[in-house]
Amino acid sequence: MASSPIRIGIAGYGNLGRGAQAAIAQHPDMQLVGIFSRRAPAALAQSAVPVWPLDEAAAHRDDIDVLILCGGSKEDLPVQGPRLAQWFTTVDSFDTHARIPEYFDALDHAARAGGQVSILAVGWDPGLFSINRLMGEAILPQGGTYTFWGKGLSQGHSDAIRRVPGVAAGVQYTIPVDQAVQRVRAGEQPRLGTREKHTRVCYVVLQPDADAQQVRQAITSMPDYFADYDTTVHFIDADTLQREHSGMPHGGFVIRSGVSGQDDAQVMEYSLKLASNPGFTSSVLVAYARAAWRLKQAGETGARSVFDVAPGLLSPKSAADLRRELL
Amino acid sequence: MASSPIRIGIAGYGNLGRGAQAAIAQHPDMQLVGIFSRRAPAALAQSAVPVWPLDEAAAHRDDIDVLILCGGSKEDLPVQGPRLAQWFTTVDSFDTHARIPEYFDALDHAARAGGQVSILAVGWDPGLFSINRLMGEAILPQGGTYTFWGKGLSQGHSDAIRRVPGVAAGVQYTIPVDQAVQRVRAGEQPRLGTREKHTRVCYVVLQPDADAQQVRQAITSMPDYFADYDTTVHFIDADTLQREHSGMPHGGFVIRSGVSGQDDAQVMEYSLKLASNPGFTSSVLVAYARAAWRLKQAGETGARSVFDVAPGLLSPKSAADLRRELL
Repeated sequence: MASSPIRIGIAGYGNLGRGAQAAIAQHPDMQLVGIFSRRAPAALAQSAVPVWPLDEAAAHRDDIDVLILCGGSKEDLPVQGPRLAQWFTTVDSFDTHARIPEYFDALDHAARAGGQVSILAVGWDPGLFSINRLMGEAILPQGGTYTFWGKGLSQGHSDAIRRVPGVAAGVQYTIPVDQAVQRVRAGEQPRLGTREKHTRVCYVVLQPDADAQQVRQAITSMPDYFADYDTTVHFIDADTLQREHSGMPHGGFVIRSGVSGQDDAQVMEYSLKLASNPGFTSSVLVAYARAAWRLKQAGETGARSVFDVAPGLLSPKSAADLRRELL
Repeated sequence: MASSPIRIGIAGYGNLGRGAQAAIAQHPDMQLVGIFSRRAPAALAQSAVPVWPLDEAAAHRDDIDVLILCGGSKEDLPVQGPRLAQWFTTVDSFDTHARIPEYFDALDHAARAGGQVSILAVGWDPGLFSINRLMGEAILPQGGTYTFWGKGLSQGHSDAIRRVPGVAAGVQYTIPVDQAVQRVRAGEQPRLGTREKHTRVCYVVLQPDADAQQVRQAITSMPDYFADYDTTVHFIDADTLQREHSGMPHGGFVIRSGVSGQDDAQVMEYSLKLASNPGFTSSVLVAYARAAWRLKQAGETGARSVFDVAPGLLSPKSAADLRRELL
């Protein structure tokens, strides 16, 4: 372990930022030196570390080895990422799959110009699931890859419910269809449609004057979000929602079902069961912050994905110790 | 994909070598150019590719981009590995965990002297399981890592059975204790002794004059191999052994059960269910052969473990395609 800890900064102090703060405290080779926030620093006075305005980030470039970007993928990261990557080595959990190529290019340009490293799309999907999709098809080129999500709370679908007229509050869980998972695990390689892979279950608190049947109909027929799924809507009261549905569990499986050269069925499965989605995503971010710092120290610059990062760079242990203890 | 295929050689033509031959045929960017064997080439006349004496390997150094070493870890690789690494970029499945550091050093010395790359200890354990052990503790530093093996045929334990007086033939299956697996999956982090993690089941064909009770006693009391486990011995006839126990299935789980920063239980699990252990191990070797060639082409030299290899190097796809299709 290096004699002085890696100095980490956090940009954005929502669920992910607070998760990163807690995760950093679990790593003796890291030290949280500051948090950047758009909110007035006074509002974050309970924090034990300095809180700085995000606008003044550049002034702290020499205080921070790696900056963990904890903003959202839709509004925050497309702007913040390339801006901060010119001054800092960064990691982020950008998760808009379709926009990864253009975001990568913008980060790469900024990071190269500033002599920094930026690892994007770190987390579990994209992230650890992506690695397992890649390794599955590289090792068993004849086969199928299946990604199932859940049981877990989907933020996007929960937001969609809350926009329905008559809904006061609500959450949505994505649930993999057990029968489909079992068929894939058994090596069947089935063709599975959207409805066959996942179901959706909603817990909804109605507004006082709302019509339950209308709300149910509006949810289950919503295009893209629910119409293609078997969706169940439960109506509950606000207390029950608060008591039973305020966690953010998630998880899922990546299964590669293939046939090796001599016609033998081989099944590789990666699965996560997470009590807290942001807590785990931020834990992955923090491990990749160490890798980003190692790459920077090795003289590399530019954007990287998890595909470009050797596993050993995630660990505080030396390569020799890793071979002796974990290989 | 490169315009000309990666030229692969195989050294050693047992189960693993035959598996590698079959796996190479699944990768359009690779071509098997020759097999080295200690056996007289005439005895391998059924092979569709040239078979050369292992002693003359050096003469073919310019014909081969990557040589896959398919010899055994006990007798073959400690000698063959460093010898061949001076002439060839190699991958091997060396699996004597305790001797990995010294083997790494010998390979590293030879590979550096010859300007080659050697990736050692490739397969599933050591190999893919090792990567998951490393990533589990790097991402969730507060937690426990559990490796379970099986249900699977253990070559070493099967050999041990066959050395018992009175045994004509036999196989041994390692079986994880389901209750232990369930406890770990549930996030309990139990302390598990040897006997609590795995059971051993043997299928034995007796010699004509053997005493079944004596054989059973000799097996179940054998130190290191069986004495510390709950071991069941079934006596069967030679036909049944041939019919029901000639496959080489294996598999297992690596489970990391940890707690993220805000006291949330997080469980990561990697599992394999393999109809053929050598068929899968050789499939992993072939994917890492591609990575070894990429490292060599990038100007690297010396020994590497799977911890040093970025996932993207295993795939024939470009980094941009991987980001677009799999991230």
